[in-house]
Amino acid sequence: MDVKELLQKIELYLNKEVILQGWIRNHRKQKEFGFIDFSDGTCFNHIQLVYDSKLSSFDEIQKYHIGSAIEAKGILVKSEGAGQDYEVKVSEIKLLGDCPEDYPMQPKRHSDEFLREQAYLRARTNKYQAVFRVRSVAAMAIHEYFQSHNYVYVHTPLITTADCEGSNQMFKITTLDFNKLAKDKDGNVDMSKDLFNKLAFITGTGQLHGEAYAMSFKKIYTFGPTFRTENSNTKTHANEFWMIEPEIAFCDLNGLMDIEEEMLKFVVNYVLEKCDTEITFLDKWVQPGLREKLTKLINSKFTRISHHDVVDILNKSNINWEFKPSYDDDIAKEHEKYITEYFNGPVFITNWPKDIKAWYMKENSDHKTVAAVDLEVPGAGELMGGSQREDDYEKIIKRAKDMNVDLDVVDWFVNLRKYGGCYHSGFGMGFERLLIYLTGVENIRDVIPFPRTPGNCLY
Amino acid sequence: MDVKELLQKIELYLNKEVILQGWIRNHRKQKEFGFIDFSDGTCFNHIQLVYDSKLSSFDEIQKYHIGSAIEAKGILVKSEGAGQDYEVKVSEIKLLGDCPEDYPMQPKRHSDEFLREQAYLRARTNKYQAVFRVRSVAAMAIHEYFQSHNYVYVHTPLITTADCEGSNQMFKITTLDFNKLAKDKDGNVDMSKDLFNKLAFITGTGQLHGEAYAMSFKKIYTFGPTFRTENSNTKTHANEFWMIEPEIAFCDLNGLMDIEEEMLKFVVNYVLEKCDTEITFLDKWVQPGLREKLTKLINSKFTRISHHDVVDILNKSNINWEFKPSYDDDIAKEHEKYITEYFNGPVFITNWPKDIKAWYMKENSDHKTVAAVDLEVPGAGELMGGSQREDDYEKIIKRAKDMNVDLDVVDWFVNLRKYGGCYHSGFGMGFERLLIYLTGVENIRDVIPFPRTPGNCLY
Repeated sequence: MDVKELLQKIELYLNKEVILQGWIRNHRKQKEFGFIDFSDGTCFNHIQLVYDSKLSSFDEIQKYHIGSAIEAKGILVKSEGAGQDYEVKVSEIKLLGDCPEDYPMQPKRHSDEFLREQAYLRARTNKYQAVFRVRSVAAMAIHEYFQSHNYVYVHTPLITTADCEGSNQMFKITTLDFNKLAKDKDGNVDMSKDLFNKLAFITGTGQLHGEAYAMSFKKIYTFGPTFRTENSNTKTHANEFWMIEPEIAFCDLNGLMDIEEEMLKFVVNYVLEKCDTEITFLDKWVQPGLREKLTKLINSKFTRISHHDVVDILNKSNINWEFKPSYDDDIAKEHEKYITEYFNGPVFITNWPKDIKAWYMKENSDHKTVAAVDLEVPGAGELMGGSQREDDYEKIIKRAKDMNVDLDVVDWFVNLRKYGGCYHSGFGMGFERLLIYLTGVENIRDVIPFPRTPGNCLY
Repeated sequence: MDVKELLQKIELYLNKEVILQGWIRNHRKQKEFGFIDFSDGTCFNHIQLVYDSKLSSFDEIQKYHIGSAIEAKGILVKSEGAGQDYEVKVSEIKLLGDCPEDYPMQPKRHSDEFLREQAYLRARTNKYQAVFRVRSVAAMAIHEYFQSHNYVYVHTPLITTADCEGSNQMFKITTLDFNKLAKDKDGNVDMSKDLFNKLAFITGTGQLHGEAYAMSFKKIYTFGPTFRTENSNTKTHANEFWMIEPEIAFCDLNGLMDIEEEMLKFVVNYVLEKCDTEITFLDKWVQPGLREKLTKLINSKFTRISHHDVVDILNKSNINWEFKPSYDDDIAKEHEKYITEYFNGPVFITNWPKDIKAWYMKENSDHKTVAAVDLEVPGAGELMGGSQREDDYEKIIKRAKDMNVDLDVVDWFVNLRKYGGCYHSGFGMGFERLLIYLTGVENIRDVIPFPRTPGNCLY
């Protein structure tokens, strides 16, 4: 039986015999009694197992180490001790798998750095039980939101030969032997010998392919891994991460913001409802104020303001900015922070200078800005980035040329504007960025089961 | 408004004005009337738009091409014509995006081969509308099954430096320039210059990492892309595909089969319920008998039989097999087919000869077989493969050595047996193989939005 089932239906199992399988998280031994802090991973809460010296196996059980896997039989009873309402009075314990005393996950507070080095074991600790259950539940929340709104989930390809982001940002893949690379007549490596007969990459976005499917199903979303080669060691960068990229036909920038706001509130609410215990733990031990932050978000109205007006506000603030706000430039972290505090809540910043945004975004009638939108969230920074897409065939070709995009590899994408194109919009949300926000954990390495960062590819 | 909403709530919208946005799938023009076969991709069904010559824009609308994006305003009425119960009597149509007459998706029957070459457009056809909605719904069914049974969804890493499957089966990845590879002192390429300071791959399985998480959360599943470098051009091989890999602690082989059977029936039932129209279409045009096949599966009891007993049955059959059945060897496609017909339903084949199965599978007490199980399904072949895992630390080390597995890269995986190991089991299911079964489509290239196969990496 799962501990989750037991704790959810206490009245049903009270004073009855139960059989549990799981692990010893802690073991307190007294002369006449023993107390096992027991968890099976099916829920955040543990349950206490109590055994006494009347058991013939008392001496044997007292030897069981922390970390061991056991099967325990006993009666669920009201606890007479402090610290828990219920406990299991054990009649029998079987040792399923021993655990030596050099077990790294001893019941004490470990540093995040230490636990990262033990990535295959760290999900056994309270903190990472909470984090990775929230990760699973938040993933489900995203699927529930989009599926219940009739979006089609599209598995866009990870392998691509379209180098439209610049190959310096993408991992190259190959089946060739690095030490035996054949050369072509110009002396370059002959990629035609590779499995796809040419150079291929693993991708950093599913957006382009997503657009093709939005032109078929109206509303689609992707949710899958993406890759960046950035050689950047910060708290928010990883070389492998998961992205959600919805794309919606017949949707303009305002419609997009409606969807972003509704989706985010749905996901936060879903996690608050399904992960109450985990959020309570994280609120207490990881980020005090976490629950208040999340609850406030659900109840806030998101502000919508143009990049131009944001710069006005920044300039009027009389603050001596490290980076001077500019109508033609991106805004800095210090500006993001100020503007969400200024509006005391999440802010959609719209209509960005076109030269700092992607080539496929829709140009506004001022010819200076594009219909892009970034969502700035207090305590999270930029959580989503999206835009209405350029749907004019001639304009997107001109823009692609101006930005040195290779039209040969995106001809099909451009053709979507030719064959029944329509106004449409989409956004991307980094799943780990959302998780940092949801859990209060600061480092991206601590919300990914087995993180990959420069120089770091363990397990 | 979505066509799906309109068709679901006909009574609510009947004789009312509606505004629809979508695409012209077909356009039949008469002197006094025009009929537009209209779809917005929100559901499989189209709706007919009727306009007549009283409209001042009649001549203009008659020029609209197939494939064009339009916005139509009109009244939902009962249809007087044959072929549909309802239609929209148009008062106004706006052209949102034209479509030239060279549009490849003309309303006629196209070959699958032709449509593969138009992968970015093919989801606009009836067949691929059905297939890719089933794909989306089946993906959700899998999440629903596991989440409702309290499994934790784990995003196992795709990038790995663990070459435990043999690097000839995995794509290598690199950030190095193929034409400027630095050499080490032995004259080999110096992979320490790469982003992870060593050779890395994209993975073919999440199982190993999944096991680590099963030892933390008891029940976990993965659902993500996997990669194989196989240079194989068959109907069932692709170089990129999606896999589901559940892993369950305190679960033996029988428990595993219970889960496989329950999950598969859940998913099939879910798709039958949510994709009734799509299945009806696929049953009629792609695989006659599809619905009956799926319904039969839900109501069948899956047989459980050992590999040894299967070989006995094959040998007693008096059939002149192309491949002679053997107690020590794999079974062939012809055997799979025979055995599912023999039992008239799905068959779990258990306890396989250990030498043809993976190194981490649990050895049975006969020392000849392992506690592996393949699920054979009529019309699908092998749909899932799983096993109880070897949980004995000494045995798995010995087995790894015997099978030339590099223990340096799987030391952490082996250590799971040392630190509170327990009996546990897991299986893998190729998502595309499931989709081939669910849709009746024969070729894996036709259930993947943008398939990747040897020499083929378009879009």
